[in-house]
Amino acid sequence: MKVTVKVPATSANLGPGFDCLGIALPLYNEITVEETVMPGSGVEINIIDINDAYDVISIPKDENNLAYKAIELLYNFIGQTASDIKITIKTNIPVARGLGSSASVIVGGLVAANELLGKPADNAVLLSIAAEVEGHPDNVTPALFGGFCLSSFEDDGSVAYSKIEWPKNWKLTVLIPDYELDTKIARSVLPESISIQDAAFNIRKCSMIIDAVYRADSELMKKSMKDKLHQPYREKLINGFKELNELLQNKDDILGCVVSGAGPTILVISENDGFEKAESQIKQVFEDLNVKCDIRTYEIENEGTLVI
Amino acid sequence: MKVTVKVPATSANLGPGFDCLGIALPLYNEITVEETVMPGSGVEINIIDINDAYDVISIPKDENNLAYKAIELLYNFIGQTASDIKITIKTNIPVARGLGSSASVIVGGLVAANELLGKPADNAVLLSIAAEVEGHPDNVTPALFGGFCLSSFEDDGSVAYSKIEWPKNWKLTVLIPDYELDTKIARSVLPESISIQDAAFNIRKCSMIIDAVYRADSELMKKSMKDKLHQPYREKLINGFKELNELLQNKDDILGCVVSGAGPTILVISENDGFEKAESQIKQVFEDLNVKCDIRTYEIENEGTLVI
Repeated sequence: MKVTVKVPATSANLGPGFDCLGIALPLYNEITVEETVMPGSGVEINIIDINDAYDVISIPKDENNLAYKAIELLYNFIGQTASDIKITIKTNIPVARGLGSSASVIVGGLVAANELLGKPADNAVLLSIAAEVEGHPDNVTPALFGGFCLSSFEDDGSVAYSKIEWPKNWKLTVLIPDYELDTKIARSVLPESISIQDAAFNIRKCSMIIDAVYRADSELMKKSMKDKLHQPYREKLINGFKELNELLQNKDDILGCVVSGAGPTILVISENDGFEKAESQIKQVFEDLNVKCDIRTYEIENEGTLVI
Repeated sequence: MKVTVKVPATSANLGPGFDCLGIALPLYNEITVEETVMPGSGVEINIIDINDAYDVISIPKDENNLAYKAIELLYNFIGQTASDIKITIKTNIPVARGLGSSASVIVGGLVAANELLGKPADNAVLLSIAAEVEGHPDNVTPALFGGFCLSSFEDDGSVAYSKIEWPKNWKLTVLIPDYELDTKIARSVLPESISIQDAAFNIRKCSMIIDAVYRADSELMKKSMKDKLHQPYREKLINGFKELNELLQNKDDILGCVVSGAGPTILVISENDGFEKAESQIKQVFEDLNVKCDIRTYEIENEGTLVI
């Protein structure tokens, strides 16, 4: 028995939505979970970079592997332990770039293992385990369900979430630089506390994003995608972010320019030909900084994790 | 020439929506602005408590009066000064209770004076002046437009706002105690900064309120009306708030129990007969604390300020 699933990449935060907003992109990892032929042979983890483009050596192949950790919690949930399984991760999502590669392997491992076990866990359980392993639910929710999601890790360990319909003509462009940024480092630069004013700023801006998405209101979205909680502190770790924001802040049809997750990828949301009109200037910013950057424009991914 | 307007009371914050969420209640102040008969006679301010129930002596009758301050800014906007006018404020909204009485006189004065002047200012200008005088837009926006509003004071002095349709069967009960709480004191107990975790908590909870209102989802609303930014610090100033939250947290059909504005009024949101079922226990909480409390259940007010 073996099950393979595909899991989308995700971009979390969208500016003010620290640890709660995330959106899925049509760029997939494939995760296969199978019972090993020989009982007692233990856990085997294989990682294949299908583009041979990213540093996948850093991904653990032992019990520290996040897919394995999540699968182990699922087995525990049904009173078993995860031995004698083989996990194969085919990575297409860039690693350590702020595109939810870790969320994708957690969710993919969980969904595949759950299928293999005859679906003992429902989505709520899968999501709760995924958020526990990841530490926050903003990437794992859209990785599981696709779309634009608001999620909240609740005190009882459950995840409250909503998938909110994204305006069809709002495009997502990711600017993926050729260097990695460890999420731990990106978290370590955040202060322990922020002023009440900055907190209130983010509260209203994130709430305005929800409202702007419901209304498909581009002008409101433009006013909403502002953050004072994490981006000002991470800016120095993310080459070109400051320059790009200055360049794009008053451009027509550009709705926002934010750090994707903990970076270093930058997410630009645009409509019509907003991105195309600014593209050569954007490329120039990275050239001037001598940073190689892979630029990809997507529509939202709405399917989430699927068995293939 | 004289113009009279009626302006609704408002309840701000709704828990996590510090300085950005507010909702209008069908309880009105009336504000009349008129040109005085004798030019050069200066500004005259009269305050009438139509219920003879509240301490209106504390409301300034000179240039410190908030209605006058707002009107003066409106006159400045058209290059004039506000002399030779008479302002009459008939108060029905309890004073210094967290029900937007100051927002109502600001908005009422502005709208009445704007009518008197032939409407030189549009709503955006009125809202911007009102928010400047009040210091934050959460009460003045629903006072002007009615309904449930999300608003944000922007860097350029404008107010970005939305009015979002409130579920018809969600009732608003205000528990108005017989003591005042100065907003300045209620603000002074807040810390200068809060932890990133508490800020992130409020960011997601306030965003969830927007989502819950759009969906008319009571279960989501119940999870959303939680706050870690101001209520934990104001709790000690608001008799019964802690006890009431403990009492109501798992009650059927009670969606939330929050401080109204800066208090001391408490706002309970319920559906069906949720409030009625809990009412005797709620009254007992206040009796045990020896606090007299006026309890009123309303539907949302959707008209906002109207010339009468």
